[in-house]
Amino acid sequence: MPNRSDPSASFEDTLARTIRAAPRFAATTRQERAMLLAVMANELDDHRDELVTLGQAETHYSAEVLVAEVQRTTDQLRFFGEVILDGAYLERATHTDDPSVDVHRMLVPLGAVAVFGSSNFPFAYGVAGGDSASALAAGCAVVAKEHPSHPLTCRAVLALLRTALEKVGMDVDTVTLVSGLDAGIALVNAPGIRAVGFTGSTAGGRALYDLAANRPSPIPFYGELGSFNPVVVSAAAADERAEEIGALLADSLLRRAGQMCTKPGVILVPRGEAGDELVRTMATRIGDEPAVRLLNETVREQYAAGTQALSDIPGVTVSRGLPPRHRSGDSTAEDLVQPALFEASADAFSGVADLREIFGPTSIVLRTTDPAGASRVLGVLEPALVGGLHVSSSEDPDAGALLQALLPVVGRVVANGPTTGLSVGWATHHGGGYPAATSVHSSVGASAIRRWLRPVSYQGVPESLLPEDLRDAHHKGVEYQRDEVGTSEGAGR
Amino acid sequence: MPNRSDPSASFEDTLARTIRAAPRFAATTRQERAMLLAVMANELDDHRDELVTLGQAETHYSAEVLVAEVQRTTDQLRFFGEVILDGAYLERATHTDDPSVDVHRMLVPLGAVAVFGSSNFPFAYGVAGGDSASALAAGCAVVAKEHPSHPLTCRAVLALLRTALEKVGMDVDTVTLVSGLDAGIALVNAPGIRAVGFTGSTAGGRALYDLAANRPSPIPFYGELGSFNPVVVSAAAADERAEEIGALLADSLLRRAGQMCTKPGVILVPRGEAGDELVRTMATRIGDEPAVRLLNETVREQYAAGTQALSDIPGVTVSRGLPPRHRSGDSTAEDLVQPALFEASADAFSGVADLREIFGPTSIVLRTTDPAGASRVLGVLEPALVGGLHVSSSEDPDAGALLQALLPVVGRVVANGPTTGLSVGWATHHGGGYPAATSVHSSVGASAIRRWLRPVSYQGVPESLLPEDLRDAHHKGVEYQRDEVGTSEGAGR
Repeated sequence: MPNRSDPSASFEDTLARTIRAAPRFAATTRQERAMLLAVMANELDDHRDELVTLGQAETHYSAEVLVAEVQRTTDQLRFFGEVILDGAYLERATHTDDPSVDVHRMLVPLGAVAVFGSSNFPFAYGVAGGDSASALAAGCAVVAKEHPSHPLTCRAVLALLRTALEKVGMDVDTVTLVSGLDAGIALVNAPGIRAVGFTGSTAGGRALYDLAANRPSPIPFYGELGSFNPVVVSAAAADERAEEIGALLADSLLRRAGQMCTKPGVILVPRGEAGDELVRTMATRIGDEPAVRLLNETVREQYAAGTQALSDIPGVTVSRGLPPRHRSGDSTAEDLVQPALFEASADAFSGVADLREIFGPTSIVLRTTDPAGASRVLGVLEPALVGGLHVSSSEDPDAGALLQALLPVVGRVVANGPTTGLSVGWATHHGGGYPAATSVHSSVGASAIRRWLRPVSYQGVPESLLPEDLRDAHHKGVEYQRDEVGTSEGAGR
Repeated sequence: MPNRSDPSASFEDTLARTIRAAPRFAATTRQERAMLLAVMANELDDHRDELVTLGQAETHYSAEVLVAEVQRTTDQLRFFGEVILDGAYLERATHTDDPSVDVHRMLVPLGAVAVFGSSNFPFAYGVAGGDSASALAAGCAVVAKEHPSHPLTCRAVLALLRTALEKVGMDVDTVTLVSGLDAGIALVNAPGIRAVGFTGSTAGGRALYDLAANRPSPIPFYGELGSFNPVVVSAAAADERAEEIGALLADSLLRRAGQMCTKPGVILVPRGEAGDELVRTMATRIGDEPAVRLLNETVREQYAAGTQALSDIPGVTVSRGLPPRHRSGDSTAEDLVQPALFEASADAFSGVADLREIFGPTSIVLRTTDPAGASRVLGVLEPALVGGLHVSSSEDPDAGALLQALLPVVGRVVANGPTTGLSVGWATHHGGGYPAATSVHSSVGASAIRRWLRPVSYQGVPESLLPEDLRDAHHKGVEYQRDEVGTSEGAGR
């Protein structure tokens, strides 16, 4: 089939073909690329059932979860079509220099880029995920790295993207796939690769980041790594709706079997009866959850080791609200694990800095006496992608202080909702300081496209030589992003 | 004097004071910071003569050059006041998530940052230069590194900035200064420093970039390093105005004794009589230039070594249009150097990849047979900050091809003007690929401010808890940058 990569092609061949395709692709119009993204989305939608079947076999997620994820992925492809048609992403600006020389500025594509998808979102952060969608929208050719945890899913998505390229008459090598650890390393080191997008673990991401930074000619490495996300509940919120918040948090941490980088990692709950009820509700719901199969054996081993290490920290106990079989965090069958919940006293507990993200269905609750106690815990945590804030719907004396304590730590604050919902839209930011991310600008939301672009200033360049996008526009008051256009789909990472 | 840093303060004390000052400064309003920048500009203007006298003693530039540079520096401080009052730099965006939850996005300050100024622009790229102006505008506190080549100028500027902070009632430790190589290294490694701005050599910049990238928690390093800038002259342009272009290029490369990172490094001139005349005009003007004193002994030694190495490359000759005393590139007196011009045939010459920036009053002319020859040379060059393009004012058959060959190499294209003029305005970009820069976004122009900011998304956060800038604004159609506001001052780097 001409729309598939030749599996016998060498890494060097594949890379060379995409690098060769890049300049032609960079020269396409925004309209042409928006059409390409729409056709790609249609191809994926049209083959959704096959993709979901493959994905189920390789990830153990339910069909329902993967159907929603394919939908998010195609929404995202179409959304980036809107972003480029809107045109504000070009960041066009003009001023007049002395003596009346026009200076124009605009962003242009970087060239060929590399994309490493994640294990936990085979579609939305995969070969056709946010990194690829934003890079293609920007006009960059993409070499994707096949994920060893779901290779067949990667190949199926690739084939559909290449079919779309063929249908619109573009070079199919604008998107290719390489596989294997060595190919991944060679990709980051390749002189023709201009930037890297990565979603995955902190350890793997840091290793590739180090390669990118230490190249003779360094390139940007846009890594979204692990995240240990804090959630804070105010005393007034617990008094108002302990059960509701407890249920919301339990559902949030159980989603996708806890394999989401937006999962609540540490939950700060006030001491007292309302807080007790909140934690009891969480524990009950978690206790009702059947044992689950995680993405792969590595994830299962790390979950077992992580929950064991957590329960070994002095002051940490397994939540008493859990039924006995959940207390160990152990698996019932060889490849299944039990959801778990841990507790500690924030005030007496000196191990906050030792807490780490555990991928899988578990969180730790820290009980706090006052907002100052919660702020102290937040002050010790490493930067994270998202923070949850539960406050009262009426006057809440602690709301402001808790928000101010959260803001330095996170890239997104969600008030009175689950952190695990992420809408892909104009205002989305899904990033945070290191170790949550290696770059300031995130892979999700409209501004993701900026990561694949570089500015060029045109000073005194005759009108006839300017690029089309600068020639025809009266870009006074150039917009960066506009609002009220975002798609909204909750199946977030 | 309370407005000076205590010179006996230790590095640790100084750093700690600025890190402590950072949160309060981040909480100031845009109006307060615009006022601060205006008062800082006024302080520098009011003490211009003292600053120029100090600068002359430490840099050997003329008073005229430094008066213009102080003006550019204060224009730049005021310009960033305009940028923040405009508000588009906040990149506010809003969309509504399902079910009717508002998601807002806005940029917020990073915290305390470090600024390393350059040797060749003691004011415009110094303690109060573009990096500091944009960082302060963003709401970041600044620890500047004293430049060993002009320490007294740095200290005088610092004292004036601190006087301004005092006058507006802000913490004077919002801007401090540290000195010495060890302090510079410690600054880049300091956990409380969130980003680094640097202007200087590729070697020094790369060393600090490596430190920043290899920290346990890496931080952005915004380096503007050296640059070997190409200039291309089309055949039609040479036919039309050989003398004019030759004079313009000679003046450009002689400006500030060639100590500008926007200096023409390699000039591609068509073969034939018109090209001969262009080169003859250049050589004559360069030959008329008296010997000059460079910034410091290191720069002089590197100029002597660089011109010697260049003339040793097979195929490179000293321009025959130069008078004999200019042909060696040697100094006449111990601390003076002669401006020089070199030539080679682009077609026969295989040493293009060996050509490097030489800081000081010299360039090399490569003679080309056709636009394809020029494109071949451009294809071999490393990325640069700026490229010059001289084309005919009427129909020019080669203009499009030459521009397309330049664009992949440079961050700014100047048509029919000197590359050494740089207006600081809304559309300015002064960056390029590595080794010209280590970051995509540049230190000059409105978007420089973005480098000191990080995005935060607020999802479902009650109106009363939102920051003032999100609360009061109806930010539909948020602007990123607007045009026709830029200041224009030609004394660029």
